[in-house]
Amino acid sequence: MDKSPVCVVGLGLIGGSVLRAAAGAGREAFGYNRSVEAVQAARFDGFDVTPHLDEALNLAAARNALIVLAVPAPALSILLPYVRDTAPGNPITDVISVKTAVLEEIQKVGLEANFVGGHPMAGSTDSGWSAGDAGLFVGAPWVVAVDDHVDPHCFITVTELALDCGALAVPARSDEHDAAAAAISHLPHLVAEAVAITAGEVPLAFALAAGSFRDVTRVAATTPELVRAFCEANAGQVLPVLDQTIELLTRASTALAQNGSVADLVDGGHAARTRYDSFSRYEITGVVIGDEGWRETLAAAGRAGGVIRSVPPVRDSPG
Amino acid sequence: MDKSPVCVVGLGLIGGSVLRAAAGAGREAFGYNRSVEAVQAARFDGFDVTPHLDEALNLAAARNALIVLAVPAPALSILLPYVRDTAPGNPITDVISVKTAVLEEIQKVGLEANFVGGHPMAGSTDSGWSAGDAGLFVGAPWVVAVDDHVDPHCFITVTELALDCGALAVPARSDEHDAAAAAISHLPHLVAEAVAITAGEVPLAFALAAGSFRDVTRVAATTPELVRAFCEANAGQVLPVLDQTIELLTRASTALAQNGSVADLVDGGHAARTRYDSFSRYEITGVVIGDEGWRETLAAAGRAGGVIRSVPPVRDSPG
Repeated sequence: MDKSPVCVVGLGLIGGSVLRAAAGAGREAFGYNRSVEAVQAARFDGFDVTPHLDEALNLAAARNALIVLAVPAPALSILLPYVRDTAPGNPITDVISVKTAVLEEIQKVGLEANFVGGHPMAGSTDSGWSAGDAGLFVGAPWVVAVDDHVDPHCFITVTELALDCGALAVPARSDEHDAAAAAISHLPHLVAEAVAITAGEVPLAFALAAGSFRDVTRVAATTPELVRAFCEANAGQVLPVLDQTIELLTRASTALAQNGSVADLVDGGHAARTRYDSFSRYEITGVVIGDEGWRETLAAAGRAGGVIRSVPPVRDSPG
Repeated sequence: MDKSPVCVVGLGLIGGSVLRAAAGAGREAFGYNRSVEAVQAARFDGFDVTPHLDEALNLAAARNALIVLAVPAPALSILLPYVRDTAPGNPITDVISVKTAVLEEIQKVGLEANFVGGHPMAGSTDSGWSAGDAGLFVGAPWVVAVDDHVDPHCFITVTELALDCGALAVPARSDEHDAAAAAISHLPHLVAEAVAITAGEVPLAFALAAGSFRDVTRVAATTPELVRAFCEANAGQVLPVLDQTIELLTRASTALAQNGSVADLVDGGHAARTRYDSFSRYEITGVVIGDEGWRETLAAAGRAGGVIRSVPPVRDSPG
């Protein structure tokens, strides 16, 4: 079976990188972007892109392309009705940070039967078409949703794209993805902002800043609109981890003031980081997509460090 | 004038790197370490080191070497009486993280006339002799103290060492250094620990962790003893920046819960990090060490991004 053509909707850092990577893997790949400047830049780089959404979606419908939603989350409510009207039968995925928020928008327009959420865990503090890179996803985890509604064939189609981009496909439920993303991406961004502000108010601080400041605040250089978009769309998951971090720091402050010790925080943090450093991935094998309980099996494997490195077999009757 | 021989007391990551760099710059360099294993390793690497403190200090006295204190801060109260008894006239510096705490120990034994605090702003999450590197300090800021008691000739001696190690000498008062170090090093360590603990409790988090988690928590891999040592010795400066960060995060949590917005934190953090990225250094010139007000002039220059790249001239009568 030939791999699906790919229609990338939105050609920023992530969408632009998907378009490049899919084309680089030998797929038919085309795209849409609202800004004419980005379209011109992408055309100059040799890609088949258009600033007309209907043109891209009509071609997607004609070619039964996998539609990859790569626009900022707030644009979905405007965009999705066009997708439903023009390409209602196409497989659809997305590369947006917050999976339950996207799924809700998809459900509003009734497209969930063909939809499998996705999220490549890669990025950069740069943005826009020019920041894209065909190699951005190589070796990175790329979440492929295994929510209850997910269709086996759509799951395979989206997993193939992740693998063609060089990523490790990690099966996960949308709600678990969002809780994890809050802890390992959204929280680190907020903490980086707070450290940058705090240090910026101390004379001499920037003059002495070295590795630890640079590393901890690196992601504070990310476009504020993007940081706001994923934190605010994932508020329900961000709040508990943010409050947990505030609680840990508050306890450390009290212990430092009262007993002169930060032992609890430092020992706990070192132990957690050591566990992370020894966390290892393994390849998921032996699961037939569509067999009874396949989604639960894959979700459990993903949680334990399992990744899909090659396209798994699929059973024709959905489980 | 020949450059001072260097006696490095303590051969861990920083002390071991200073010994290598000083020897690499053509200086006579020797050292002491308490652990026989480290001494054997350093000797195997061709360095003149001893596990006998009196041997190292006697040689330092005979050669009028610059004594570089590179032991953990808690060891100073045991060590310094030996320095005073054996080498009371030698110039002394240190490479320990908290400058006022070291200065207090120095004052207790009456050695401040020959003492100029120092702190290379470089490091690694590794530790011990084997982690050392002659190039560790190349291009890094290296604070040289300009406290009121600092002698012009001692200042020059310590600055020469920093420059020989390839660093940029940044003149600063000990108290201002400690406030800045709390903001750009100690606070980032504590925040990294808290994020590591928080994420470690979320299923799937380590499976999805990518660049932002890795960068923000990198320093949580630092030896807990070291993190505790500098945070606890600098508690008076760590507490205000830690509490300021907690306050910023708490305000963001409230705003996210109540208005669904993290705009204030994110915009402020991005602006601060942007100011850091555009912070530029300049070379301090035209200051004669020992002239009236030289210490204040250098402290103001250091705050503004000034660095010393070549040994400045010195007036013979102290200002």
